[in-house]
Order: sequence, then C-alpha cells, then structure tokens
Amino acid sequence: MTIRIGIMGLGTVGGGVVKLIRQRQEVIKTLLGIDLQIAKIFSRRDHRLAELDIDKSLFTKNFDQFIQTPMDIVVEVIGGDAPIPFIHTALEKGMKVVTANKSLLATRAREFLGGPHSAHLFYEASCCGGIPIISAFEEGLTGNRVQSVVGILNGTSNYILTEMDQKKADFNSVLKTAQDIGYAEADPTYDIEGIDASHKLCLLASLAFQRPVSFDLIQSEGITNLELEDFAWAEENGYKIRLISLAQNGSADELFLGTFPALLPLSHPLSSVQGAYNSVFLEADPVGELMFYGPGAGEMPTASAIFSDIIAACQNRQRQWSQAVYQNESNGDEVISNPEFPFYLRFRTEDRVGLLAKLCSEFGSRGISLKFVLQKTLPNNQAELVFTTHPRTLTILNETIQSLIKNKLIISKPLVMRILEI
Amino acid sequence: MTIRIGIMGLGTVGGGVVKLIRQRQEVIKTLLGIDLQIAKIFSRRDHRLAELDIDKSLFTKNFDQFIQTPMDIVVEVIGGDAPIPFIHTALEKGMKVVTANKSLLATRAREFLGGPHSAHLFYEASCCGGIPIISAFEEGLTGNRVQSVVGILNGTSNYILTEMDQKKADFNSVLKTAQDIGYAEADPTYDIEGIDASHKLCLLASLAFQRPVSFDLIQSEGITNLELEDFAWAEENGYKIRLISLAQNGSADELFLGTFPALLPLSHPLSSVQGAYNSVFLEADPVGELMFYGPGAGEMPTASAIFSDIIAACQNRQRQWSQAVYQNESNGDEVISNPEFPFYLRFRTEDRVGLLAKLCSEFGSRGISLKFVLQKTLPNNQAELVFTTHPRTLTILNETIQSLIKNKLIISKPLVMRILEI
Repeated sequence: MTIRIGIMGLGTVGGGVVKLIRQRQEVIKTLLGIDLQIAKIFSRRDHRLAELDIDKSLFTKNFDQFIQTPMDIVVEVIGGDAPIPFIHTALEKGMKVVTANKSLLATRAREFLGGPHSAHLFYEASCCGGIPIISAFEEGLTGNRVQSVVGILNGTSNYILTEMDQKKADFNSVLKTAQDIGYAEADPTYDIEGIDASHKLCLLASLAFQRPVSFDLIQSEGITNLELEDFAWAEENGYKIRLISLAQNGSADELFLGTFPALLPLSHPLSSVQGAYNSVFLEADPVGELMFYGPGAGEMPTASAIFSDIIAACQNRQRQWSQAVYQNESNGDEVISNPEFPFYLRFRTEDRVGLLAKLCSEFGSRGISLKFVLQKTLPNNQAELVFTTHPRTLTILNETIQSLIKNKLIISKPLVMRILEI
Repeated sequence: MTIRIGIMGLGTVGGGVVKLIRQRQEVIKTLLGIDLQIAKIFSRRDHRLAELDIDKSLFTKNFDQFIQTPMDIVVEVIGGDAPIPFIHTALEKGMKVVTANKSLLATRAREFLGGPHSAHLFYEASCCGGIPIISAFEEGLTGNRVQSVVGILNGTSNYILTEMDQKKADFNSVLKTAQDIGYAEADPTYDIEGIDASHKLCLLASLAFQRPVSFDLIQSEGITNLELEDFAWAEENGYKIRLISLAQNGSADELFLGTFPALLPLSHPLSSVQGAYNSVFLEADPVGELMFYGPGAGEMPTASAIFSDIIAACQNRQRQWSQAVYQNESNGDEVISNPEFPFYLRFRTEDRVGLLAKLCSEFGSRGISLKFVLQKTLPNNQAELVFTTHPRTLTILNETIQSLIKNKLIISKPLVMRILEI
C-alpha cells in the first residue's frame, strides 16, 4: 500500500520530517507493507530544496496546486494562524492532517479538535516534542480521572533557567546565547512569557479532565523578571526555579490552570529536569503518579512525534477520544479556583527604622504568615528583602502588595514566585 | 453501542477490573457512546462474589459455559500457562482479548503476539503496571531506532531493595514483610530472581528493536545474595542498588539482554525510583532520551492498563505494530554481545601476608584494572574485600574468579554487581 504524504512548511521541523520519512521508509515497508511517499511539498520559500535534496517537481509555492495533488496525509508544520484555511481544506477533501501547531489548536480547539473531521486530525507533535504524551492521555489513561497535571512544557525557557542557574549569567545574556544557537526565536515572547507552555497546558488539561478547557482561563506568567539573586536564594535553600504549568482539578470540579515560575524543592521530580527537556508529572485515580520525560522541542524530536502520527494515520487509528473530549458539552462553563500556595517575594524598601515591623504587620493583618525573612542592606540607603510565606491565595497576596505600594512601604513591585511543595 | 466484556480470573487484578469498569461506565457512555457491560465472569473460585457484589448469574466455573456467552472482549487475568487454550479459543471465536500475562507472552511470543489473531490481542497491562509503555512503543516511537532500554521492571524487588537500603533490614526479613502486606507472593521466585523483570524486558526489547527477541537469550540474576554491607558501600560511595533490566543494540545488531542487580550513581535517572514503582529509560534515534515512570503493579494500576486496552479494543485500534514486529523474520538469529562494564565485587579471603598482592596480580594478569580496593579484617583470621574495576567483560571477570577459587585465594564466591555509569 502506498501512502502519499504532503508537507506544508519547510522550516526546521519540515526539514526534519523529510529526513525522517526517508530514513524510515525501508523499515516501514518491511514491517507494515506501507510505502511512504512524499507526494508534494508546499512552502512560501524554496531556499532549503538543495540542502534537503528535494526535486523541484515535488515543490510548490501555490496552495491550490499543492492541494490538488492526490494525497492521503498532509503534515502541517507552518505554524501560527496562516495554515487555518489550508488545514480545513485538506480535512474537507478527506485527507488526514498531522500538525504540530499548538497555538492554533489551543486557541481554536472546538473548531479543529471538536470539528466534524477531528478524528482525522493528529497532533502528538503539538505538546512536549518527542514525548508521546497525547497518546498517553488518548489511550493509556482512559480509565482514569486525572487530579492534576504539572509540567515543564517549554524547552526554551527551561534552557534559559538552567543556564542562569548553572552559569550565573543574567536573563538577557542567556536569551541572546539561546537565540544565537537556535534554541530561542528572534521574537521569543511566546516562550519566555509562558504563552507557549500555556497553549500546551490547554491541550493537556482538556485531555486530562476530559472536557474542553478554554485557553482564556489560563493565567500565564513568564520568566523575564527573574534575577540571579533569586537563583542564589534557591540554591542556598534547596530549591530549583522552573517555569511550571499546572492544571488542578479541585473539589466541585473547580479548576486551577496556570503557567508561572516556581520554586521546586530538590525532592520534586521536576526539579531535576534540565536544559531543553520537558516533563509531565500527573496524579490520576486509580493509576496514581505517572511521569514522562523527554526532549521538548527541536527538529528531530518533533519530527519523531509527527512521524508517529503519520503511522497512526496509516493504520487508521482515529482520534476518537480527542474528538469526544472536545465535543463534550456536559460540564458547561468552568469554575476557576483560587488555591493557596506558599509564596516567595523579593522586593526593595528604604532602609529606615521600624519599616520591617510595619511590613510584617501588613502581612500579618491579612493572615499571611511569614516563614522566612532575609534583609540585606543595599547602597543608597535601600534594603532588599526576601520573604517566604505559609500558604495563602494569590488574591490576598496581591491585595497586600497593593497596600504596601500605596503606603510607600516598598520601592519596587515585588518579584513573586509560588513554592511547589510535594 | 453495547460492548460485552468477559473476565477470566477473579483474583486481585480481576477484582480491580470489575471495580474500574463500574466506576468508568457512565463517563465512557457520555464521552464515546459506548455502554460497557460485564457479560460473564469465569474463575475457579467464587469466594469474592459477595465482596465484589457480583450477581451469581454472571459467574461460572465452567469455561465452556463462559465462552458460549456472546462477548466482544475477553479480559484474561488468570496468569501463568493455564489460560493458553482459553485465549486461543476466544481469539478464534473472533473476540478481542486483553491480557496482563507477561510470562505467557514472553515465553510464547510468536504463538500469541505473532499469531494470526494477534492484532486482536491487547497487552498493555503486561509491562510496568500503570505506565502506558506498550502504546508508547507501538505508537509514539514508530519513527525511531532504539539503541537501549534500561528499566526497573519489577516492583516487588525494587520495594525490597528500597526497604533494605532505608531500614537497614536484611533480605529475608524485608521479603517476609513484603509477603505479609501482599507486595510479594507466597512463592516469590519470579520476582526476586529477576525472571518477571526479564519477561517484561523480552516484550519491551522486541518492540524496541522491532523484531522478536527470544526470552531464552536473556540472562536473569536476582537480588537474593545482596547483603547490608553492599548497601552500606553504595551509600558511602554515592550509589543506589537497583535490579536493572537492560537491552542494548550494539554495533552490527549485536544485542545485550539481561536483568541483574547494579550500582547506579545518584545522577542516574533510575537511581531515584523507589518502592514498588517502575521506570523505563530509553535512548532512541532520532528522538533522544525518554523516560517513563509510574506504579509498577498492583490491583488498580494494572486495572488502569487493562481498562485502556478495553477502550482501545472498543475503538478497534488494532495491534498491527506488535503483530508486524512479531511476524518480522528479517533479522534471523540474534547475536548476543558481551559488553564491558565496571564491576563491584565483595568476597572473603584468609587474612595472610601477601595475599592482596597475589589477588591484585591475578586481576592485572587478565587486564582487569582495579579502581577501588577496601580490605576489612574479620574475626577468625579472615578478611572481607571490596573491589571495583574499570570496564571489562563478564566472561573475563568470571575466568578470573574461577582462577581465584581454584588457587584458594578466596574463601567465598564473590558477590558481583555491574556498575551502570551514565
């Protein structure tokens, strides 16, 4: 049986897909009797044709010409919103579509993943690169009620945090290095502001809780305000700083959904995830605790996930579970919970008599109990303080901070991180 | 759509499957429109009927009566060789079969997993309890050439090793506790001698290397000879002792396949796996390093895996990949490699002048370079020695040991462990 594959997009991942199809062609033919053939490649730019040894007759810059080619499976690795009409057209023509496009799927979930053709839409590559996490939810966890998913879902930001920690280099210099070696994009906003991680969290939380979770409900905080002082404090006190994505199913089906930098004790399984790796840790009933770990992005890990979807599509393993999840209307609107966390705060004050007492009483008056206090004198008659608190809601913490600012008890807006005890 | 499920076996896991089907019935009906119904239960013993609230009309001790019930899916959780004819009959009658029976699948792989009906044989629950590792290979890794799989595949032995380490309790007393709380069976041979882990390794290695690996090729060593001295040495020197199952694809397709106790440096991702948990760490091209972690056995984790197979069977997600792997004749006989490892040895000698020099020269004459030597005086004019070596093959090490015994340089056969550097 010959399977004709079309590829939309010839960037880093597109090139990886071309290479991997060629690399695995013989094995798949021997094992499954399936002859994978690249039927057509569509891209705006043709500058990689020679490097990838692609015959010009296989290539087009014209979508109409592309989509009129007889094809069984179309791989979309353009990214962003541009391929919206292309994906719809391919699905409507009865082709199966494999995509790595998390932003599109997260923000238009019902349109694509809950749409009439969604059982033919494959998206393993959209989350956590080479970790088969979508199929773990779609297949392995169908007997479970998931209580929480906590993940390191963005390789770029985890790389930056690891480098800041290990090399004692500041955010901007590490970001620049990451851009130079291709770990971060020219516009790194989605990665460093937690948005990319929240896109993935949206997809994973929907599968975990078995109903569509709206992307708009996810609070995203990035890592741009972290300073080397924060890493030094973490090291001295037995923590690692990680950009965490957390989806929690509380009592009465209240959800908490957020991406934020957090302090993880060294005993937390995610604290040891380094560099561009991703990891997902989940608690589910009845299975218990599961963890998945692997390369979170990059040419070949993503190509590996796309290839696995190509084979799944060849075998007609439809995405019925995802379709059912995204067509599930049973739960109505989500109620977002406001769980308590212990917090870490770093901020500046003027160095004057009695100020610490006033600060402490502001926290105490709102029921925020302090666990750790560190004051360091700075030049210019200023002081830097680090507080950690016992568990309290972010709402109450933010009210406290507003009051501190209003009463001129602090100079700078505090750097706030949640502490994730396990 | 109603799916009629038959269950063969009503022990711990069978009871878990009954509970989980009831627990998930409503959710699955809402999501997928599938009405899961337990059609018949077959078991030799009926003592759990009241406890599990099973109507007597659903139960039979007679296989013929069981198999004549109209059923779509049959779950086999009897274990061992007894269900061989039952599984064949169910498959021949066109039923899908879900099994957790690793010993049967590993020792009769071609008969079952390569047989004519094997695309209808589901076996996620046979390896690593609640970790969806079979579907990871069958679906997520189809684009990869796996270089190595290293796993902690037996929860009972990992529980025993963790307890020996943490409670400083000897093997026999920990085994007895494990039996008392139901973590180890009355006859614990398969668990503590590495055989159960090797059954699972056989299944994982076949999927990893995409050809059937014969169980007979796997060397199994157990944990029964480990003493508290070994744990003390490990702790002092920054290692953990784990029962490791390793499948390595060397050059020229030479394989190494074995289960054995090993010393893992604390930096090794498997060194932190504690208690009855399992974990699989693998290296594959092009995806890189992946790790999976979760509960390795027990009533509900195993039921979770079986339930996931029930849903896969309902959705007609056939096991084509496994079938293709086990029908793959392309590689012929396996060549087993003899890779080099650093070793740890503990043994006794008489405490006499010049003996250490003789011992060292025996090792040196066979090209075994010592890395660490510790000698402790014992009562009765004896000494206990611990050596670690630089990498060498087990064959050469065993020749050396034979020579030491023959020349009466040592009193006891050494306790030998591989050291797994990463």
